[in-house]
Amino acid sequence: MAMPQGPQVFPRNEYLRRLAAVKGEMERRELSALMVVVPANITYLTGYTAKSGYVPQGLIVALNDEEPTFITRRMDAPAAIHQMFIDRSLVIGYPEGLIANPDKDGWDALIDHLLEAGFGKANIGLEEQSLSSQTVGKFRARMPAAKIVDFGNTICWIRGIKSDLEIALMREAAAIADAGMLRAKEVIRPGVSEADAAAEIIAQLVRGTGGRHGTDAAGFTLCASPRTSTAHISWAEDHFRDGSQINIELAGVRHGYTSALMRTFSIGKPSDLLQRLHEGEAAGLEAALAVVRPGATCGEVATAFNETLGKFGFKKESRCGYAIGIDWTEPTASFKVGDPTILKPNMTFHLMLGNWIDEDLGYAISETLRVTDSGADTFSTLPREIFQI
Amino acid sequence: MAMPQGPQVFPRNEYLRRLAAVKGEMERRELSALMVVVPANITYLTGYTAKSGYVPQGLIVALNDEEPTFITRRMDAPAAIHQMFIDRSLVIGYPEGLIANPDKDGWDALIDHLLEAGFGKANIGLEEQSLSSQTVGKFRARMPAAKIVDFGNTICWIRGIKSDLEIALMREAAAIADAGMLRAKEVIRPGVSEADAAAEIIAQLVRGTGGRHGTDAAGFTLCASPRTSTAHISWAEDHFRDGSQINIELAGVRHGYTSALMRTFSIGKPSDLLQRLHEGEAAGLEAALAVVRPGATCGEVATAFNETLGKFGFKKESRCGYAIGIDWTEPTASFKVGDPTILKPNMTFHLMLGNWIDEDLGYAISETLRVTDSGADTFSTLPREIFQI
Repeated sequence: MAMPQGPQVFPRNEYLRRLAAVKGEMERRELSALMVVVPANITYLTGYTAKSGYVPQGLIVALNDEEPTFITRRMDAPAAIHQMFIDRSLVIGYPEGLIANPDKDGWDALIDHLLEAGFGKANIGLEEQSLSSQTVGKFRARMPAAKIVDFGNTICWIRGIKSDLEIALMREAAAIADAGMLRAKEVIRPGVSEADAAAEIIAQLVRGTGGRHGTDAAGFTLCASPRTSTAHISWAEDHFRDGSQINIELAGVRHGYTSALMRTFSIGKPSDLLQRLHEGEAAGLEAALAVVRPGATCGEVATAFNETLGKFGFKKESRCGYAIGIDWTEPTASFKVGDPTILKPNMTFHLMLGNWIDEDLGYAISETLRVTDSGADTFSTLPREIFQI
Repeated sequence: MAMPQGPQVFPRNEYLRRLAAVKGEMERRELSALMVVVPANITYLTGYTAKSGYVPQGLIVALNDEEPTFITRRMDAPAAIHQMFIDRSLVIGYPEGLIANPDKDGWDALIDHLLEAGFGKANIGLEEQSLSSQTVGKFRARMPAAKIVDFGNTICWIRGIKSDLEIALMREAAAIADAGMLRAKEVIRPGVSEADAAAEIIAQLVRGTGGRHGTDAAGFTLCASPRTSTAHISWAEDHFRDGSQINIELAGVRHGYTSALMRTFSIGKPSDLLQRLHEGEAAGLEAALAVVRPGATCGEVATAFNETLGKFGFKKESRCGYAIGIDWTEPTASFKVGDPTILKPNMTFHLMLGNWIDEDLGYAISETLRVTDSGADTFSTLPREIFQI
């Protein structure tokens, strides 16, 4: 029995639309082939979410072919046949002997394919920022008559504006994030270990809510007293106490689509300082949301937040957010002073107001949102408050 | 109050020993400074496990300084002060304005530091395979009088032989992996969704066992019928049925140190074909373990497995395992035919016998082990059987 194609998350025409946008950029740059290597971009163009990107693999988009070709190691080909919308004949597994092989690797298999497909003298796009200099060098050396062009972040920018189908998945992911945060509210208690709490919260994110499972476990951070000024610690070998503050960043995931959420918890009454910081941040959040609308720039959103927070006597040094979608952060637009990106309907952002001010003052609040025709639509239904335990 | 240094996982002299080994390699190559960027290598040399490696950061090892200097974005400096063994003055946060900045990024901050520290005309090692060609180009362009040398996988090779303290952590991680697999045995039942089972198993891996928590959630795959020929699917939106086969790969984690484990489950009696494959694999596993001893090569271990499996009429195309330690796979030695790496005491491997033979036959079994003075010591206490539900 052959591996069956699995249930498809999106209809075929959704993928063809995405591919058409990529091909439009290829035409503009006079490229006849493009090798996509960023895992989130491969997900975007095919539906593939298996975790095989730690070894060489690439999706080859040819300008003149309707469907792309995926070349991956042999053992991952069945997952690609199962998950991708493309015809099974377009999934090619390269020999396992190319793994951990000092002489020849999976990139050679990809280059062989490009040469055999007649692209030896073509203009070819590469996502160079995600490849080592050695790998880019190998493409240039083995394809001397081809013109290798850096395709940069182009597909990430195309991903920036979501379809309604993508927005629907991000809403499902946001409901899961909410459920995770509510579970945190149930399990954070004095004497409970950080790991035991994390276990319950992460389990909820996997279990999902409302009949929709989490389809993956995303990054998770739980930074509790005395570590509230840290941003990216998973959790520590410690337990909560009376008076502990806990900053949590988590996300729900649906078929790669990620909705992130941050909230701060306090066991007992928050300190006056923390309460004042919260009030400034919450007011800043409202001010930022009030600016979000088509035509505004990302920089203006950050400025609105910063000015409001400043009135409360605080400052946030880091950016106020970033584009979000498949696999969390999209490396494109930021809510950052001076970012010229113009907001358009169905762009999605993590308005990320985590603020680690000095070595003993940090606070976390955020919203994942989409730009609507006239403003901002936040996905979470949770109150914007310090959750007091 | 300043961020306190947290409880240290290893004593200071353990880190100094590791640094001495790295400096020995630097001396051999006549390097006066080295920039370490692979997150697992930074963990190895400092104890840092926070998840900040998605933006530029680097640990600068100077031949003449006892402790290295860590340069990371401002918001991650407190976590480094908390976790690293080095003096807090050696953790330097670069301005948040360098994040998502098209003109100047964190690598510029690292280069600035190298220049200010007097390395402008020095021989400097870079882990080039983990840097984009653009970043390597920036180092060469901004440090034209320095000699930039690729340090390759050198630190990964040094990590290959564990200290007894590291082995102790990997044993703790293995006990957690066992607990996760036993939890799988409890929760896999007909009608249960894959996500609900995954939630319970992952929660166990985080909760840990025997008073030792998991300190992180590692990669997790659950590939169930009809997806048993896939290797790297997290889990699917599906549920178990009578007759389902389930292949699981999971790991326990203790302070970065990872012990992996694979087992196959069957709801009801396994098919004769699966049973025969299991018998071949289990016999091959014993044959492989019998070869493991100091002085044998990695290639010989693979050959022993392959020859035994072949007697049962099966073949495994992919390698039979790889070095394992911090953050799972070490990109160095493999149990692969022809791999010349000579085994030494306290090398650790994931003897990974997952075998995806064709589109409807896959099977998973593995052991994480250390090389002893005379043989192999497997960390798991679970039987090498198909777990029948």
